[in-house]
Amino acid sequence: MTTLLTTRDVAQIVQRLGIDTCLTRLVGYLEADYLRWNEFDKTPRVAAHSQDGVIELMPIADASLYSFKYVNGHPKNTRLGLSTVMAFGALADVATGRPELLAELTLTTAMRTAATSAMVARHLARPDAKSMALIGNGAQSEFQALAFHHLLGIEEIRLFDIDPAATAKLLRHLQSVPGLKLTVCGSTAEAVRGADIVTTVTADKTNATIITPEMIEPGMHINGVGGDCPGKTELHRAVLERAKVFVEYEPQSRIEGDIQQMPADFTVTEFWRVLNGQAGGRDNHGQVTVFDSVGFALEDFSALRFLRDSARELGLGSQVALIPEMADPKDLFGQLQLAPANENVRRAA
Amino acid sequence: MTTLLTTRDVAQIVQRLGIDTCLTRLVGYLEADYLRWNEFDKTPRVAAHSQDGVIELMPIADASLYSFKYVNGHPKNTRLGLSTVMAFGALADVATGRPELLAELTLTTAMRTAATSAMVARHLARPDAKSMALIGNGAQSEFQALAFHHLLGIEEIRLFDIDPAATAKLLRHLQSVPGLKLTVCGSTAEAVRGADIVTTVTADKTNATIITPEMIEPGMHINGVGGDCPGKTELHRAVLERAKVFVEYEPQSRIEGDIQQMPADFTVTEFWRVLNGQAGGRDNHGQVTVFDSVGFALEDFSALRFLRDSARELGLGSQVALIPEMADPKDLFGQLQLAPANENVRRAA
Repeated sequence: MTTLLTTRDVAQIVQRLGIDTCLTRLVGYLEADYLRWNEFDKTPRVAAHSQDGVIELMPIADASLYSFKYVNGHPKNTRLGLSTVMAFGALADVATGRPELLAELTLTTAMRTAATSAMVARHLARPDAKSMALIGNGAQSEFQALAFHHLLGIEEIRLFDIDPAATAKLLRHLQSVPGLKLTVCGSTAEAVRGADIVTTVTADKTNATIITPEMIEPGMHINGVGGDCPGKTELHRAVLERAKVFVEYEPQSRIEGDIQQMPADFTVTEFWRVLNGQAGGRDNHGQVTVFDSVGFALEDFSALRFLRDSARELGLGSQVALIPEMADPKDLFGQLQLAPANENVRRAA
Repeated sequence: MTTLLTTRDVAQIVQRLGIDTCLTRLVGYLEADYLRWNEFDKTPRVAAHSQDGVIELMPIADASLYSFKYVNGHPKNTRLGLSTVMAFGALADVATGRPELLAELTLTTAMRTAATSAMVARHLARPDAKSMALIGNGAQSEFQALAFHHLLGIEEIRLFDIDPAATAKLLRHLQSVPGLKLTVCGSTAEAVRGADIVTTVTADKTNATIITPEMIEPGMHINGVGGDCPGKTELHRAVLERAKVFVEYEPQSRIEGDIQQMPADFTVTEFWRVLNGQAGGRDNHGQVTVFDSVGFALEDFSALRFLRDSARELGLGSQVALIPEMADPKDLFGQLQLAPANENVRRAA
């Protein structure tokens, strides 16, 4: 049987462990896997573009585990009452190909993206960073806010969204978090002014310039999370030109990242090289650093490992007959005689 | 909610509709989609190779529906009591990216492969074909036998497998099918001798030569089903040289098919062109035709449509919370408050 974790199961994991513990543990899984970078069979994701969005598959494997994520990006979905991003994925055994875990990855992607942002910022932002501008207060924003608060000690978050209802929703969720000051701003420029870290999480499928050069102050770290497909950017190219730019997996980021605006020889550093000490991070206090995040399959691999281990620990999940279980593995035809058992989908004890 | 169809649900579809009806309907879906060939966004599958096998993702989309299949191929799995091939997949709405159906595709792949073989053979085999050699009597063999019996009127099937237990299993399942004569042979050559159609469904991950030139008789149609990754073939190259060769999707078949042995300019015909009349099929009674089948994503797209429609018709399947359902689509964080409801996975009424 294959373990199935639904949205409710993942919500249970977060409720029972606490969001701060989940984010902390996720960073642990992410760092462990990023340190093993060269052990992975990596490929840019496979995208199917349509008029209003994109559907992508993100596979990755090491010698023992294989994972993939299905994820869409449809910026107009919110008008239909649907999520912009929806995701699910699986973890399988490389030796046999058997899928072990099938899991929702919508909530999980928001957590792993925030954990990745915080992991990277711990190495690139100034150690004394205390404030962050958060541009875009949609589905991923609370996760980013909490990751930077819990994992980097960010005390003030300066909010802006073109949709005031999105900002109000964020305030409703996070206004009672102890030690976190939330400041609502009237524009991106106002939110960014004086911030140590600037996080952008916007979703339009256009070449936007959310962050322009005159907003940039010495020593800022820019965590560019939104924009993750060709023709979709958030940063003005002059912002990239004056910064030291870090990416996850260069072949994919050249296609999808904000660096799609730059020439092919524009210098970027893959983050794993900073983590393992092969490359330097921030060179000095006044340098501007950019993490041009697009989301990489390795992060979902780490997140699926976290889900698998947490679900085991907490006894969560259902067992589903996604794959035949056969006494004689050559007797697939015999499976046609299966009864319509209620044991089809079984809850954990 | 996303509809989940497990192995038991698909077994129920087959039990309630009958295998002959399922295969007949599948051919209808396949032909409808093959006739729309140019409407599809096609790509060779994405493979992760390891020492003992391969794990692949097979995406495809038209303007309204997207599908993908996860499938492995691990020839040594049977020694561990596991299937050589295990598969599942999903059908999603292109306009929003929402996954509508998640389904087992192990049983279904065996059915859609057999339906594809029969669809192609109806256009390429001699119209008077009455006998078929079936080399390899493993997991897919009964499906091939029944597809050719029900859809092409094949009356005698000549069986050979290096594992006599596999042949015994096939006999056990099919010996009481009315009007079908099963003949057990002692070798591939004996099974092939005098057969109108030769179907190979073997699984070793090696360059095998199951079918050699001296076995070939004028007018034969060879349905080469096994062998579907680089370094894995079933037909001697001289068999291909003297035949007219048909494939599903040339870019993928050049990598995976038996034609991987041939030069890049070796002439092949994509089957959809025969179906819509753009290309000829068999040129004369004595010509040898080869369908170098590797399995293409379009066939899973058709199979998933068949499953979706059949499950609706029969009221089968579970509803699972694979994707968040939100009153406010920007309020993903609010999903963390979800209760651990038993309504997590809901059976159809």
